[in-house]
Amino acid sequence: MIVAMQEIATEEQIQQVIEHLVRMGFSVHRTTGERQTVLAAVGARVDFDTRNLEVLGGVQEVHRISAPYKLAGRSFRPQGTVVQFANGLQIGGDEVVVMAGPCSVESREQLFKVAEQVSKAGARVLRGGAFKPRSSPYSFQGLGIEGLKLLREAGDRFGMLVISEVMEISQIEMMLPYVDILQVGARNMQNFNLLRELGKVKSPVLLKRGIAATLEELLLSAEYIMAGGNYDVILCERGIRTFETYTRNTLDISAIPIIKQLSHLPMTSDPSHGTGRRDKVASMARASVAAGADALLIEVHHDPDKALSDGAQSLYPEQFRQLMGELRMIAPAVGRKIA
Amino acid sequence: MIVAMQEIATEEQIQQVIEHLVRMGFSVHRTTGERQTVLAAVGARVDFDTRNLEVLGGVQEVHRISAPYKLAGRSFRPQGTVVQFANGLQIGGDEVVVMAGPCSVESREQLFKVAEQVSKAGARVLRGGAFKPRSSPYSFQGLGIEGLKLLREAGDRFGMLVISEVMEISQIEMMLPYVDILQVGARNMQNFNLLRELGKVKSPVLLKRGIAATLEELLLSAEYIMAGGNYDVILCERGIRTFETYTRNTLDISAIPIIKQLSHLPMTSDPSHGTGRRDKVASMARASVAAGADALLIEVHHDPDKALSDGAQSLYPEQFRQLMGELRMIAPAVGRKIA
Amino acid sequence: MIVAMQEIATEEQIQQVIEHLVRMGFSVHRTTGERQTVLAAVGARVDFDTRNLEVLGGVQEVHRISAPYKLAGRSFRPQGTVVQFANGLQIGGDEVVVMAGPCSVESREQLFKVAEQVSKAGARVLRGGAFKPRSSPYSFQGLGIEGLKLLREAGDRFGMLVISEVMEISQIEMMLPYVDILQVGARNMQNFNLLRELGKVKSPVLLKRGIAATLEELLLSAEYIMAGGNYDVILCERGIRTFETYTRNTLDISAIPIIKQLSHLPMTSDPSHGTGRRDKVASMARASVAAGADALLIEVHHDPDKALSDGAQSLYPEQFRQLMGELRMIAPAVGRKIA
Amino acid sequence: MIVAMQEIATEEQIQQVIEHLVRMGFSVHRTTGERQTVLAAVGARVDFDTRNLEVLGGVQEVHRISAPYKLAGRSFRPQGTVVQFANGLQIGGDEVVVMAGPCSVESREQLFKVAEQVSKAGARVLRGGAFKPRSSPYSFQGLGIEGLKLLREAGDRFGMLVISEVMEISQIEMMLPYVDILQVGARNMQNFNLLRELGKVKSPVLLKRGIAATLEELLLSAEYIMAGGNYDVILCERGIRTFETYTRNTLDISAIPIIKQLSHLPMTSDPSHGTGRRDKVASMARASVAAGADALLIEVHHDPDKALSDGAQSLYPEQFRQLMGELRMIAPAVGRKIA
Repeated sequence: MIVAMQEIATEEQIQQVIEHLVRMGFSVHRTTGERQTVLAAVGARVDFDTRNLEVLGGVQEVHRISAPYKLAGRSFRPQGTVVQFANGLQIGGDEVVVMAGPCSVESREQLFKVAEQVSKAGARVLRGGAFKPRSSPYSFQGLGIEGLKLLREAGDRFGMLVISEVMEISQIEMMLPYVDILQVGARNMQNFNLLRELGKVKSPVLLKRGIAATLEELLLSAEYIMAGGNYDVILCERGIRTFETYTRNTLDISAIPIIKQLSHLPMTSDPSHGTGRRDKVASMARASVAAGADALLIEVHHDPDKALSDGAQSLYPEQFRQLMGELRMIAPAVGRKIA
Repeated sequence: MIVAMQEIATEEQIQQVIEHLVRMGFSVHRTTGERQTVLAAVGARVDFDTRNLEVLGGVQEVHRISAPYKLAGRSFRPQGTVVQFANGLQIGGDEVVVMAGPCSVESREQLFKVAEQVSKAGARVLRGGAFKPRSSPYSFQGLGIEGLKLLREAGDRFGMLVISEVMEISQIEMMLPYVDILQVGARNMQNFNLLRELGKVKSPVLLKRGIAATLEELLLSAEYIMAGGNYDVILCERGIRTFETYTRNTLDISAIPIIKQLSHLPMTSDPSHGTGRRDKVASMARASVAAGADALLIEVHHDPDKALSDGAQSLYPEQFRQLMGELRMIAPAVGRKIA
Repeated sequence: MIVAMQEIATEEQIQQVIEHLVRMGFSVHRTTGERQTVLAAVGARVDFDTRNLEVLGGVQEVHRISAPYKLAGRSFRPQGTVVQFANGLQIGGDEVVVMAGPCSVESREQLFKVAEQVSKAGARVLRGGAFKPRSSPYSFQGLGIEGLKLLREAGDRFGMLVISEVMEISQIEMMLPYVDILQVGARNMQNFNLLRELGKVKSPVLLKRGIAATLEELLLSAEYIMAGGNYDVILCERGIRTFETYTRNTLDISAIPIIKQLSHLPMTSDPSHGTGRRDKVASMARASVAAGADALLIEVHHDPDKALSDGAQSLYPEQFRQLMGELRMIAPAVGRKIA
Repeated sequence: MIVAMQEIATEEQIQQVIEHLVRMGFSVHRTTGERQTVLAAVGARVDFDTRNLEVLGGVQEVHRISAPYKLAGRSFRPQGTVVQFANGLQIGGDEVVVMAGPCSVESREQLFKVAEQVSKAGARVLRGGAFKPRSSPYSFQGLGIEGLKLLREAGDRFGMLVISEVMEISQIEMMLPYVDILQVGARNMQNFNLLRELGKVKSPVLLKRGIAATLEELLLSAEYIMAGGNYDVILCERGIRTFETYTRNTLDISAIPIIKQLSHLPMTSDPSHGTGRRDKVASMARASVAAGADALLIEVHHDPDKALSDGAQSLYPEQFRQLMGELRMIAPAVGRKIA
């Protein structure tokens, strides 16, 4: 940690800061410059709150030097993490993996129709929500465990893995028999109790960035899961909140190359939630692959006008098929391929 | 709902939109202007997703007219809600209520020391965290039920009500015997399962605005609780995330008068989390009262340098005492008083 | 314009709003619903400030229906604008045009070295700043007219058009003999006096989005130029300010498909300013083309470590050459080609 | 400047960074820790772009230690700046100065009516726009020099100083005979050519924060003016752009205490532009004084419904008079008074 003192800091104030640092368990190196004094503190606990120093008299600014995450950082596995599945699929390898399906599982008929079509078009993982947290108390809330069973059945039938969102600790046990990847939604990115429990399971976890979360916070949430022993964490950009209101969120495509640099974990993109509008999904899916995404999450519905949730952002199967063709043209430009 | 068609929309596109609206259960009034056609749709379900129309061909823009919340809206109780407590205290009445105490309950000695001092200075509610969700997995996580018991004891000893944060559904039952107000933190503002359960309890709930939540979303979350039958909801501004990084968050003081206009619910302010720095708390506490806040939440610690959490934003008891004096001077300017 | 009245609005308040609208020159259609009254006002001046109604008693919300821009809107030229240059180059046509060069023109040697290399790699327009507005008063401020002459000479020598930024009205006359495209920087996007003057020239104008400008504001600024008679406006995304601080700005790739839908004007992307870091430029350039950009602006320097401005975001010529190869692979996926 | 190297940085990378720093004129102190190497560079040019280091191989992060501004920083004048006027008025002294008047000068009758009333209520400075930059090309653009003459006359008649906005360098000379304070609007906060010219005049300059400007950027713009020799700079918060759209901008009240800490310059607040709605102005004006503002800028119009610009955010004279009474009650709580 680096503490820069103000030019007008008194010697007494400098001594107080040094004492504070020593009391916290740091060794302190002092550099007295022409204009100001700078203190370098070594040996910190990773969770030290730098604001405790910022509010001391005479302090100008404080910078934590070491990243607050360790396991999620690139240095931990410089070669990158490849998440391996029993059927041979890899996320983080040469192939850009496309996960597709409806926002919510609504019925057997709906799910199987969509699953068949996304599978034919090249999707390798079937997505679908069984528990739906909705911002209005008056909306459809999901099929629950019936939805999970349908997902498993449809995935097996059409040769796809299955991903679905876990909302609460109590759902983890229930979901494990049915899904291959547990998804944590944006709103739960900092539900630390949930993350801690997910650190104990063996299934890979796809962790979505919160709409107001910095990339450092996303990595710190990944750290929570990894600290429990589950290293198969897949990160996902799904749009951040900005001042622009034309789209529901602003999909931060630059998060993809940044995370690939800061971390060894696979980084994916969800252009459906990231735009909230069907007519923008294809552009942003292509952009995500061009920027280096390891996988995509895309909502598809055979009859989006009648979808019980998020129909406006679901592609028609025909649009999805066409998009897959475009993605196959782009992937080689980044040294990747698509099924 | 109002649907404005593009100037270049064809008659066929207009008919498709009308059919879509009718299928959704709306009555449609059509106005054909010189330049464009505008459709007014009446009778909507409150949860209709306007994006379903935005993506139809020929549609320029869609505006929902009725607010998506009903119970939380000003119209529901034009005279305003006053939350009444058994000891006679009111939140939303003439008195600006100050709730103060440490960020976390750390020990009996710490809590009682702080409680005594904030009580003497005029605080009417004792705050303190028993369950601490921390962004680092390596930090202090709270005393749990022991903390709740200490809070109750200290509150009773010094004549204050007690408020503490509930993090999960499973904690509700455990907390009810000990606390007078259940606090929902910013990260849980859209934890809809938790909100639904809180709709079933009899205790007032203080609901904090998420760091990226619009005021409409805050009111919709309040609606979740109220829809379950619990109308004693108290709202709280605690800072939003903006591009400015000097403070941890930007306390949105304007949320206070806006909520007072849009809703009948009491509106409070948390300048401690809203600034994250002790040296800015007093200014923002004063500003909140001047802007019309019904109550304040303020962190105080007798030895903030040694606090196990958020010490940097905790006032010294002496600072708190002085602030209370300033607030007593300001309150009459807005027709209020402070104990 | 649509004015939704509150449920509790009185008949008197409704009449006051109607009178206000009539006084402003609108015809008013009234719909009285079960719960609230909605007024549709037709015939507005394009510049009406809807807030004048929002603050009237009993008003719930006001929506302007017609976009505040006309000439810049898609309806004005549904087939799209293609900006034509004397040498046959088109922006907005089949080819994705790459504009490249140094941030600032620093010297004849520097400019010619860079120009030769970007030209060989496929750039069709040479970029370079002659007037440099810097955020620090102590930084290099540009070569001025000497820089313009060098740009023209280098452009002609290597067969490229020339683009450079105009900062003030007084520079327009001076620049016209030397540049083919006048660039308006993000900070001047709402310098309306400058925009008005640019409406009178015959040269195309490349207008950059301000770092906090909505897309509607960008189009309204384009309208300013077009209202003066200059329809050759090219828009450019160059990053917006968000809460994420890892990159200087967040390049809003989704602005590309949105502008292509809302407007007929060509839409381009500047990944150099949009990321501020050389190591993120290639990813975001690829993403921009994949999302449908009509052109790119990229900073290249033969010795970025010694660049007098923005060296950190300038590509090495070799990196640029490699990027061009990747872009040539991506363009066909969106039905485009690159020189 | 502090450069933290990655844990996996090689000795060769470290040496390259050191050489780069030395070439830039820094002295370098190296600390090799258990986990990583940290370099402290002393003696930098104030305008060094830290990104040049961030993109070097092996670098983790770079922190500039010294603030990029000197003259605007608190250290330059620890006792604070008080701007003195010939008539004895002080901004930055004991009195909270209220500047009020119409958004635009529209006519002699309008201006004198408003001026008389704000003066009676306690305003000490008359505000009014003569040059109006409007976001729509179809709106009223101001009275120009006639407006300035009217302002001067009204100011003299009612015993107030005069403030008006300067939009371009060419207007400075024209304005000096008529106004006491030159105001720089939010859109021109980084119009560095304009700022440089304002550094040469003798009149105080009120500099508004841009809607997406950090406080550091605001101080750097003040530095531009001060570097030219004009130390009478008054800063002004007028709302920043956030994700919340209920108000036009979010008035960042916390900017007031932060600027008072970082700088010696007077800090003021403009609740009219900061909220954009008349019904929120009084709350935010009170909050600004309670937070420590040295002055307020408030729009008042005798007939806001007919105002040619910004009528929705203008107070009625009676509302202004009432607000002044409330402010007089609040000021003593922060050790100030109001005329």
